[in-house]
Amino acid sequence: MKNKTSSLFVAATLLSATVSPVLANNEAMLNLLQVLRDQGTISSENYRLLANAAKSDKEATEKVVNKVKEIEKDTATVSLKGGHLKFKSRDGLFSAQVGGRIMADYASISDDRNRDGDGSEMRRSRIFLKGKIVNDWNYKAQFDFAEDSLTTKDLYIAYKGFKPVTLTLGNHKISNGLEENTSSKYITFMERSTINDIFAVGRKNGLSLATGGSNWSFMTGLHMDGVSNNNVDQNEDYGYGARLTFAPLSEKSKALHLGVSAHRQEYESTPLAGGAFGQQRFRARPEIHTINTRPYDTKIDGVDSADTFGLESAVVFGPFSAQAEYFSKDLNTTTDDVSFDGWYVYGSYFLTGESRSYKAKKGSFGRVSPMSTVGKGGYGAWELALRYSDIDLYDTGAAVNTMGEEGDVTTIGLNWYATPNVRFMANYVMANVEYPGTTNADEDIKAFQLRAQVDF
Amino acid sequence: MKNKTSSLFVAATLLSATVSPVLANNEAMLNLLQVLRDQGTISSENYRLLANAAKSDKEATEKVVNKVKEIEKDTATVSLKGGHLKFKSRDGLFSAQVGGRIMADYASISDDRNRDGDGSEMRRSRIFLKGKIVNDWNYKAQFDFAEDSLTTKDLYIAYKGFKPVTLTLGNHKISNGLEENTSSKYITFMERSTINDIFAVGRKNGLSLATGGSNWSFMTGLHMDGVSNNNVDQNEDYGYGARLTFAPLSEKSKALHLGVSAHRQEYESTPLAGGAFGQQRFRARPEIHTINTRPYDTKIDGVDSADTFGLESAVVFGPFSAQAEYFSKDLNTTTDDVSFDGWYVYGSYFLTGESRSYKAKKGSFGRVSPMSTVGKGGYGAWELALRYSDIDLYDTGAAVNTMGEEGDVTTIGLNWYATPNVRFMANYVMANVEYPGTTNADEDIKAFQLRAQVDF
Amino acid sequence: MKNKTSSLFVAATLLSATVSPVLANNEAMLNLLQVLRDQGTISSENYRLLANAAKSDKEATEKVVNKVKEIEKDTATVSLKGGHLKFKSRDGLFSAQVGGRIMADYASISDDRNRDGDGSEMRRSRIFLKGKIVNDWNYKAQFDFAEDSLTTKDLYIAYKGFKPVTLTLGNHKISNGLEENTSSKYITFMERSTINDIFAVGRKNGLSLATGGSNWSFMTGLHMDGVSNNNVDQNEDYGYGARLTFAPLSEKSKALHLGVSAHRQEYESTPLAGGAFGQQRFRARPEIHTINTRPYDTKIDGVDSADTFGLESAVVFGPFSAQAEYFSKDLNTTTDDVSFDGWYVYGSYFLTGESRSYKAKKGSFGRVSPMSTVGKGGYGAWELALRYSDIDLYDTGAAVNTMGEEGDVTTIGLNWYATPNVRFMANYVMANVEYPGTTNADEDIKAFQLRAQVDF
Repeated sequence: MKNKTSSLFVAATLLSATVSPVLANNEAMLNLLQVLRDQGTISSENYRLLANAAKSDKEATEKVVNKVKEIEKDTATVSLKGGHLKFKSRDGLFSAQVGGRIMADYASISDDRNRDGDGSEMRRSRIFLKGKIVNDWNYKAQFDFAEDSLTTKDLYIAYKGFKPVTLTLGNHKISNGLEENTSSKYITFMERSTINDIFAVGRKNGLSLATGGSNWSFMTGLHMDGVSNNNVDQNEDYGYGARLTFAPLSEKSKALHLGVSAHRQEYESTPLAGGAFGQQRFRARPEIHTINTRPYDTKIDGVDSADTFGLESAVVFGPFSAQAEYFSKDLNTTTDDVSFDGWYVYGSYFLTGESRSYKAKKGSFGRVSPMSTVGKGGYGAWELALRYSDIDLYDTGAAVNTMGEEGDVTTIGLNWYATPNVRFMANYVMANVEYPGTTNADEDIKAFQLRAQVDF
Repeated sequence: MKNKTSSLFVAATLLSATVSPVLANNEAMLNLLQVLRDQGTISSENYRLLANAAKSDKEATEKVVNKVKEIEKDTATVSLKGGHLKFKSRDGLFSAQVGGRIMADYASISDDRNRDGDGSEMRRSRIFLKGKIVNDWNYKAQFDFAEDSLTTKDLYIAYKGFKPVTLTLGNHKISNGLEENTSSKYITFMERSTINDIFAVGRKNGLSLATGGSNWSFMTGLHMDGVSNNNVDQNEDYGYGARLTFAPLSEKSKALHLGVSAHRQEYESTPLAGGAFGQQRFRARPEIHTINTRPYDTKIDGVDSADTFGLESAVVFGPFSAQAEYFSKDLNTTTDDVSFDGWYVYGSYFLTGESRSYKAKKGSFGRVSPMSTVGKGGYGAWELALRYSDIDLYDTGAAVNTMGEEGDVTTIGLNWYATPNVRFMANYVMANVEYPGTTNADEDIKAFQLRAQVDF
Repeated sequence: MKNKTSSLFVAATLLSATVSPVLANNEAMLNLLQVLRDQGTISSENYRLLANAAKSDKEATEKVVNKVKEIEKDTATVSLKGGHLKFKSRDGLFSAQVGGRIMADYASISDDRNRDGDGSEMRRSRIFLKGKIVNDWNYKAQFDFAEDSLTTKDLYIAYKGFKPVTLTLGNHKISNGLEENTSSKYITFMERSTINDIFAVGRKNGLSLATGGSNWSFMTGLHMDGVSNNNVDQNEDYGYGARLTFAPLSEKSKALHLGVSAHRQEYESTPLAGGAFGQQRFRARPEIHTINTRPYDTKIDGVDSADTFGLESAVVFGPFSAQAEYFSKDLNTTTDDVSFDGWYVYGSYFLTGESRSYKAKKGSFGRVSPMSTVGKGGYGAWELALRYSDIDLYDTGAAVNTMGEEGDVTTIGLNWYATPNVRFMANYVMANVEYPGTTNADEDIKAFQLRAQVDF
């Protein structure tokens, strides 16, 4: 009889235990003691003492449980994975990240024309804050402080609510080009090609729509100029363009990338006194950034608009990869049309077996993780690379193209990835500059340059 | 007899359990096993095995408890509430916050005088660090990087030990004005009124004393110039002032604000060659910041000091609010006195039912939280607003007031608060500029401008 | 018999419990219930109910254990100790820190030559990110934004894998001098001595090797110029040097420091038109930074290289400390050699009994922690200090040393450490400037200056 009652009691208690399982802890003991007392196995006095002990145990457990709940509530997750400082709210609605990059360059340059010397440069020196707000909103604020000069990089608000489309407004890459769309943290050579510097749109202040899938990416945007004290007394220049990439193959260490881009730039400069539109200048350094001069250089008068077309291709096959891009630019002037073009091709090989990391959804390359890491007893990843760029900024027939150099640049590179985010690069660059339409002799520029790089 | 002993033993154990309750966990089991063994209910062998199991259980529990303690000790609380990254030490003595704001503006401007065009501007682009040190000390370092130009905003040390008074030293708002004291994150229109730009003291490097209660606020301060490379070869300008606000009504969606301010600026400029003091210039953009020109403009020679008086009022009544300010400035020159004044009034209405958030203790407005949030299936808050500003920088009788425009600006605003910290604004501005004392025709400037804003 | 079986069963269970101790929790209860059922002490029905309750308890415990594990995995440690925001991955391989410093100065200056006035200056306004990557790699990016001017401070990558040696590449102090190697957060006077400003190498972009032990430190480095837009069209200046310090005594409040340094600077400036090398200028403010002029000033033509030698000494004896440095500089020019020298000596006394904090491993001074802290009911630490500097930039015999002031500076200091990282300083400075080789009268500059300082 007593047993019966006791069983019912136990059953009832169990039911409540099921409802709030966490607080159920030590219920079994309390129930057992009751059963043992009801059966007379233990005395009432012992029951009382033991039950108190059990309750005390239970309270202690509850204290720990509450403390854990409190910690969880008060503390967003904090990750330092790979040295990147990331925060995430436990409901996943909010996130934040604080980081940056440092690139320190050292170069020895010799130039026929005496624009040479040994020198150093803080090539990039950036910090950023980025984050997610209420699930669908993203922001990023990234600034470069290299060489004591402030340059706004990414500075945007993005909306990801129309999946799989991302709308981005502000300063960001609205962009043609495979090298351009690959972060400077991940590019194979110390500098992107001369071609990229002349033809890529880069970061502009505007609105873009980006989307992509497992083997393609698409981005289109409308933009004003980039960010830099350009208050209005006349119309700001603007442009628009699109880029489409396709990856017939996109596996971990095998990839084939194809891409095409088109961009139109409208120049809104105030007409000059004579009625002509403003002059536009396109120029690039010879894949050496520590040098001051930009020998590949052209100026065109009366430019109204410019059309840029680009073709991209890349292949990754295990430790080997190759990449090539072609660009052309047609300038529409008030009197004449002018055309330029340029291309580069390069190959890279990981002596230590890693593969370049292709991201089909963005149509770009990402971070290389060495198989063996310095700091964990390893020796890092080692990569050999060779690039050839060919540039032509001279349009023979065009009267308005009063200057415009041609040339080519060959770069030999050796990269050491000590960790996924600590990298050392050595580049030997041989640049040739020709001055067509002039009596100037060709110019040879050679540089040996080193970079130490970290991103966090 | 055995039972008796056992009970005593149990009681003794319980006592120790009370002393260190967390470690008490599983005491009940150990006690019960002892009782059952002493009574002969279980064999000695089973007792030994079961007691070992119980001890093992206990150790496991203690391990978890210690781990929880360790996590608590090692980890300050980290909050991402609303996307704001805040840290707090568990003893409450220390805190830190990392954040910033982005405001991207796009404008189309037409101007009779041809100072117009379509353009964009990164209006604000800030990051900050702030925190609390040993309870009573606070600091904030906030910098603006907009348009690649570095501007120090808040940069101060504050002491809160003399409650309810806060002493602040460094660069901060020592400030007249209701619009001025409302953060640019929370202002109703894209730009504060022209009046504010001419008359508000804004951020200065100095010492202030601020206090306030549930329905009032008071601030007084003494300041040098603001922060910007002003090493001394002569005395720096200085000033002092006070602001008092009172809120007869200050509820969640009902508020009435009244305020008064006075400020004296002393100019310490080196006398000009002729013995006259330096020239002072006051000027403002027409509530359009993307434009270069500041048409409301006056220059006065030989200014010795200036007195600025301000009156403020605001009302919040549910979704409706109104706000008005009046300012006058008296310039004491070596030959003559010059007076200006200006005022604005505006109303705002939340179509979605929210209220502007009044902070009586600071005499300013704060963050609006939409009832329905984009990203959580909502549509945000929508606000309509209309402002009229009237400015007069021309003093008819004053010989030293050789130029000085008059005019008025009307702004129609529509704000969309997607989340509490993601906001989009559209403003249509119609500004009129008159050139009294000249034969210049009046000037009309019109602008349609858009802003995307996030703060974190 | 049943007991026997049961004992074996219990033993087997215990074994598995030993293997995964955390999950063992509540095993004792399950075992006990089984024993009691097998013995017939409790009914099968009660056994079933009680065993379910016990299992439920166990699951609840496991849930908590798993939650704790998850929190530990997801959350790097976050410390706000002393207000410094530090993160560490739980495996110790990665760390990060976000911080900065603010120093706000206010000064009243009187100068015989009328270069005086009352003024203010944001002396330092810095933020930094630093961290550790995969154990052996360190980085730091620190920028100064004082007076709206961007200056790169530390910007480097360091490798600590060759213990106890640290290799550092990038912008950092490659440095002679005890004052120079003591952070501006910890220096005894508002400004380092005039001597330090003239002779210290300071931060340069280069490679250094540093090591040290319990009573010594050594650093040697090779460097280019510091960081600031110095792209190459000619060779950059470079230099190399070393510093060795030794501490015969290095206890908590007793220390004796001796140091010696040597540095060679090579100037690579392009020869001037006449064939002479560029001019070098050395100058310093009179231990007053709010003043614009640097009256201790010399210019030397045709400088090829410079050798700097330094001697350091310091003693800490409880609340008393003293420190002295001597420097000489020999300039090798195309025609003549020029020599300067200078020295300073100072003493400091903590009225409240603290000691200056000597770091033998770095040969520098660190943070002073007051015994009593403002904000915790205390009054902070109070320190009195007196410094005398003697500078001679005039070399009588040297034809190329066309100008060069001599002089001395006396500074009386009173420091209040409210907390370890909130400090207020008052300095009274009396500087004397002589113009040897000219008919210019001596110049007296006096300043009373105040600083409010926080670092975080």
